[in-house]
This record gives sequence, C-alpha cells and structure tokens, in this order.
Amino acid sequence: MEPKEKLTDIVCVPCQGGMPALEADEIASYQRQTPDWEVRDVEGVKQLHRSFSFKDYDAAVAFTNAVAELAQREDHHPAMLLEWGRVTVSWWTHKINGLHVNDFVAAAKTDALFTA
Amino acid sequence: MEPKEKLTDIVCVPCQGGMPALEADEIASYQRQTPDWEVRDVEGVKQLHRSFSFKDYDAAVAFTNAVAELAQREDHHPAMLLEWGRVTVSWWTHKINGLHVNDFVAAAKTDALFTA
Repeated sequence: MEPKEKLTDIVCVPCQGGMPALEADEIASYQRQTPDWEVRDVEGVKQLHRSFSFKDYDAAVAFTNAVAELAQREDHHPAMLLEWGRVTVSWWTHKINGLHVNDFVAAAKTDALFTA
Repeated sequence: MEPKEKLTDIVCVPCQGGMPALEADEIASYQRQTPDWEVRDVEGVKQLHRSFSFKDYDAAVAFTNAVAELAQREDHHPAMLLEWGRVTVSWWTHKINGLHVNDFVAAAKTDALFTA
C-alpha cells in the first residue's frame, strides 16, 4: 500500500486499543517518507527512533520543548532522551504495542521541527 | 569517609579528566544523603538513576526544564528520559567514566527541585 498523503498533512487520529499494529509492508511504505527514522524491535515492540544533534545544550532543550508541544497538540507522546547536544526521540503506540500510522505522522512532524 | 556538608550546599567543582572515580565506600557514604537514587552499572560505568512521577505531561516537561536549568548552572549535564508522567534522570561523569561527588551534589539538587 502506498500512502497517498504527505504524512505532515495528516492530523493524528486518536488511537484506540484494539486497532492492529501496522504490518511489515505498511511500515516499509510509510518509512519511505521518514527515511531518517530507524525501526527498532524493543522487547517485541516495534518503535521508531531518531537521534538529533545540536551545537549545545540549550538548543537540545529547545528542541525537546518543541517536540513536547507537538506531542500535546497531537495527544501522542514520545519517549525523549535529552543529553548534552543530543535528543533521541522514540515514537510508538503503547495501546497496540507497536507502530500506528500516527507514529509515522509524528515522526514526520518531528523532522519538520528539526529543519524549521 | 562521612561527608560533613549537606550535598545541596556544595557548589559543583569543574571535573577535570584524570580525577579518579569515587570508590565503593565513598559512594555508600554519599548515597546516604541521596537514598532515592539507585547506583547502576551501565557497561562498566557507575551511574545514579532516579525516576520521578508526575500527574501529567506538562508537569513532567516543567521538571525536565527545571533540571536543565540546574544543569546549566552547575555546568554538569544529566541524561533525562522524558515520557508521559515520568522523567528518569541519570547522573554520572563522562570524563572519569564513573561517579564524582558532583553527581551526588547534582542528584541532591534534583531532589530539591522535585519537592520544591
């Protein structure tokens, strides 16, 4: 299945438990729009990961806050690891123990914040 | 060795590489002032870890920012994992691959921000 819409144009839909996680071919398809994100299997749960580098600590903190605002707007919250000069963002959907299209939408919007 | 000063009264001293990491008895002594922190061995590097719980995402983000301000004041930067309702803080000293008294000072000051 090829997604027809740009991920950043999609508004996150609330994810109810019980919806199935994306299948491998769907993941591969969406990943073409988020090529900088790595799909990792963390104890059986597929997650999207990307590390962002910054020139100093303040820039990393500012990015963390920008992603946090995105998370509140989308009502979808990542795990963010904030270190000196680096923020590692992980998106996945707890309720389905895997990846939902929301996660790819959120990843694409995170990319947009980094390049903004 | 029993520390005589309250950790929160100590100003972090810049930590040069080459200073030895704390020994086990020193760690045990300082840990009495930071009982909520767990000493973990992460691939041979001793680190202090504590998870803080919050009622919502905004509270967790606010705490992350408060610890980030502390980090800039002390010029010592932790790893912080920000999730919905939870922040996990890890202090250690990269340059000595282990724990310095600075890490206990920073842990005690982090506790003070949580209870503030």
